Amino acid sequence: MPQENLGPQHVDYLMSVVGKEHVSVTAADREQHARDQSFHEAHLPTAVVWPASASEISAILKYANQHHIPVTPWGAGSSLEGNPIPVHGGIILDLLRLDRILAIRPDDFQVDVQAGVRYKDMNAQLARDGLFFAPDPGANASIGGMIANNAAGTRTPRYGATKDNVLRLELVTPTGDIIHTGSLAHKSSSAYDLTHLFIGSEGTLGVVTTATLRLAPLPEQFSAAVASFETVTAATRAVSGVMGSGIVPAALEFLNTAVVRELNGVEEFSLPERPTLLMEFHSATAAALQEELGLVRAICQGENCAAFEAGLGRDERDRLWRVRHQTYEILVRANPGVAFLIVDLAVPVSRFPDLVAACQGAMVRENMKTYLVGHAGDGNLHPLVPYQPGNEASFGLATAIHAEMVQAALALGGTVTAEHGVGIGKRKYMGQEHGRSLAVMQTIKQALDPNGILNPGKIFAETTFGNG
Amino acid sequence: MPQENLGPQHVDYLMSVVGKEHVSVTAADREQHARDQSFHEAHLPTAVVWPASASEISAILKYANQHHIPVTPWGAGSSLEGNPIPVHGGIILDLLRLDRILAIRPDDFQVDVQAGVRYKDMNAQLARDGLFFAPDPGANASIGGMIANNAAGTRTPRYGATKDNVLRLELVTPTGDIIHTGSLAHKSSSAYDLTHLFIGSEGTLGVVTTATLRLAPLPEQFSAAVASFETVTAATRAVSGVMGSGIVPAALEFLNTAVVRELNGVEEFSLPERPTLLMEFHSATAAALQEELGLVRAICQGENCAAFEAGLGRDERDRLWRVRHQTYEILVRANPGVAFLIVDLAVPVSRFPDLVAACQGAMVRENMKTYLVGHAGDGNLHPLVPYQPGNEASFGLATAIHAEMVQAALALGGTVTAEHGVGIGKRKYMGQEHGRSLAVMQTIKQALDPNGILNPGKIFAETTFGNG
Repeated sequence: MPQENLGPQHVDYLMSVVGKEHVSVTAADREQHARDQSFHEAHLPTAVVWPASASEISAILKYANQHHIPVTPWGAGSSLEGNPIPVHGGIILDLLRLDRILAIRPDDFQVDVQAGVRYKDMNAQLARDGLFFAPDPGANASIGGMIANNAAGTRTPRYGATKDNVLRLELVTPTGDIIHTGSLAHKSSSAYDLTHLFIGSEGTLGVVTTATLRLAPLPEQFSAAVASFETVTAATRAVSGVMGSGIVPAALEFLNTAVVRELNGVEEFSLPERPTLLMEFHSATAAALQEELGLVRAICQGENCAAFEAGLGRDERDRLWRVRHQTYEILVRANPGVAFLIVDLAVPVSRFPDLVAACQGAMVRENMKTYLVGHAGDGNLHPLVPYQPGNEASFGLATAIHAEMVQAALALGGTVTAEHGVGIGKRKYMGQEHGRSLAVMQTIKQALDPNGILNPGKIFAETTFGNG
Repeated sequence: MPQENLGPQHVDYLMSVVGKEHVSVTAADREQHARDQSFHEAHLPTAVVWPASASEISAILKYANQHHIPVTPWGAGSSLEGNPIPVHGGIILDLLRLDRILAIRPDDFQVDVQAGVRYKDMNAQLARDGLFFAPDPGANASIGGMIANNAAGTRTPRYGATKDNVLRLELVTPTGDIIHTGSLAHKSSSAYDLTHLFIGSEGTLGVVTTATLRLAPLPEQFSAAVASFETVTAATRAVSGVMGSGIVPAALEFLNTAVVRELNGVEEFSLPERPTLLMEFHSATAAALQEELGLVRAICQGENCAAFEAGLGRDERDRLWRVRHQTYEILVRANPGVAFLIVDLAVPVSRFPDLVAACQGAMVRENMKTYLVGHAGDGNLHPLVPYQPGNEASFGLATAIHAEMVQAALALGGTVTAEHGVGIGKRKYMGQEHGRSLAVMQTIKQALDPNGILNPGKIFAETTFGNG
């Protein structure tokens, strides 16, 4: 049922560009592109299009711009803030067919990859050359989606977020120009940094088609360690101690007692049920790794850690990380009939204990289970706020608690989203976080997308799509 | 002698904003702000203004925008591409009085610092807390200037360029709004990354007044090493080997034979006169450092290095780096009556030997002395092209050789400026490097600075300041 902004004649045009078999208006295809992994309300697109090239996307965007048709890019649908939900209908550009690794240049630590490739699949191939793309959001996101949301995950302390690992983009602007940003050189001061402007812009400024990513050598030596503490404050002081020691952990994760308890129960770990840090270290040499672990152990013992287990073998390490990435599913299974708002906040590292206390306090006050996980090395906390799906009062309370947590993060000098993006859920906080710079962002959006066709209704609360 | 675009009534207004004593139209003050450290032609500003705050700068920019008066921010004047030369006259905003370190937060590895502070002065103060700001361009640049040009220097392989170490900016837009970009959190996906858009924009989009910088702990352990090779290719293959080993050097510098010879002569080093890598390693522990050095030695020996000297003491290491930073002055002293165009290019690391060969070949062909230094770990080369000041033919030849080197870098997939910025000298290559994305940059410039008052005549070749 095409909506007003996309009639049958428009569908015919889309078919003429990408081929009849790569456009769908069936209910099933539209429903599959109506929601991501978040709790946000589904919205049906009018049509789903699977283009195969930048030039096809260019033709579609030129046409959509001329006819004021909303266009929303779609990767793996694994985002967590409603980022690709087509709230104004129109066209979903599913980038699935941009599925090729175009070139691997091991000597330069670079890969040219199309936007629809999923990063885990890419990393499996890169491993043959001893390389990997480090950002690790957990879900098997597409490269385009990771760029759109500036995805990060567990490996940020050592390797950075997506934005720190992109050298060059090919993308299509809202008016259909195909442009390249950045350089294959690892260092450049050549005019405006458009690459970073597009990363994290959630498909509102352009459609990324190909990226040149900066890769890291697979670590020669790695080791995981688990440390348990008496208190959250002791655990987070140890985080500061490690980060200040000059050691750069590959991962530095926080799990609170309630989460550890569920992981023990479900996966038969025997972790001490206390505030816990899960760490990983990568090194070029075995001796360096051993000495780093010794130093970390001393730092943790300085905070009276109750237990410190290091030098985990590959199997145990892989199991720990698999479980860490499946925490949400494990908590859902452990709590039948309960869903969770996955909150994404970050503060300066020294305020991490305050953020943990504020989030825990709010949930305890409402007699909620208090599950907290986070990428502590970055000051990034993910409280999981429980609610009963279908129960409006319960969802309303969870939403209110979520809002309270956001205010706590802002009061601590933090950001309302560390790695999930603004999407739908965080739009209302943009004015509070960014103040007058929000107007500068809107000026840029207006200048590059004068008809507001690209992913309308995202990032900016006041965006309406009124010209269609 | 105020020019047409800045009359006496305007000077009166400026004095009313910042105080009479903080505005100058004297020849001496204007001449001191007419050129940077580059070879580019001097242009006199009409007035020099020393504001003390963002709100004073806001008042000046609002007024200048209303009256179409060019405004060019000025830091330490140490830039190398004419970046702050006021080619259209008007006002120089000298940020010298924004000279305060506002806050140091050791637990968060952060400093809030005003734009006029010089980074070496700041680092001297940060050392008391065991911290430092890693980008190290050599000259004692101002923080504002480093941000404007995305300065980098020797420590980029481990610590990144300026753009990798800025969390938050306070800046004044061309229309006089005071805005904040970014967050104190180390990780954020909250709307458009304006921070990176402003970094490297060379004062054409806004005037940075305060920055929150990300700091690194001073290394517990460090060591320098010098390796000499039979050929440039062997040296650069060793660079790839080190970068691919998982070891992350703090610095990885290349000096060609001619440069080593001059350093030996002037500073009484006894370095083997061959293509040389000068390296530094930072580590949290002594054993890790020793093992890393052993691995690096093996990599260099695998490329048949002629000599490898590691474990240099602090004095020798400091002397080496002092000399590396003074290379330009040493070469000038060694060649009376000769000046050098300092070329700044970068390519993917694997193409570094090709860039060295192309640059060396061009200078050998013209019977020039061939001095080449570079931040090899980043693929960043600085050929020094000699000419006789005042000799037009000689300068013309140097300029032609410079242009030839730029084309070589572009043909190798590189960038026309790695760390000096576009300024005046690299404007003419912007279309070639950026293609259609240059139009996107100009759209942004036009949207944010509709009257083109901020640092006109930079970055974009076709910029003219015609509305004044």
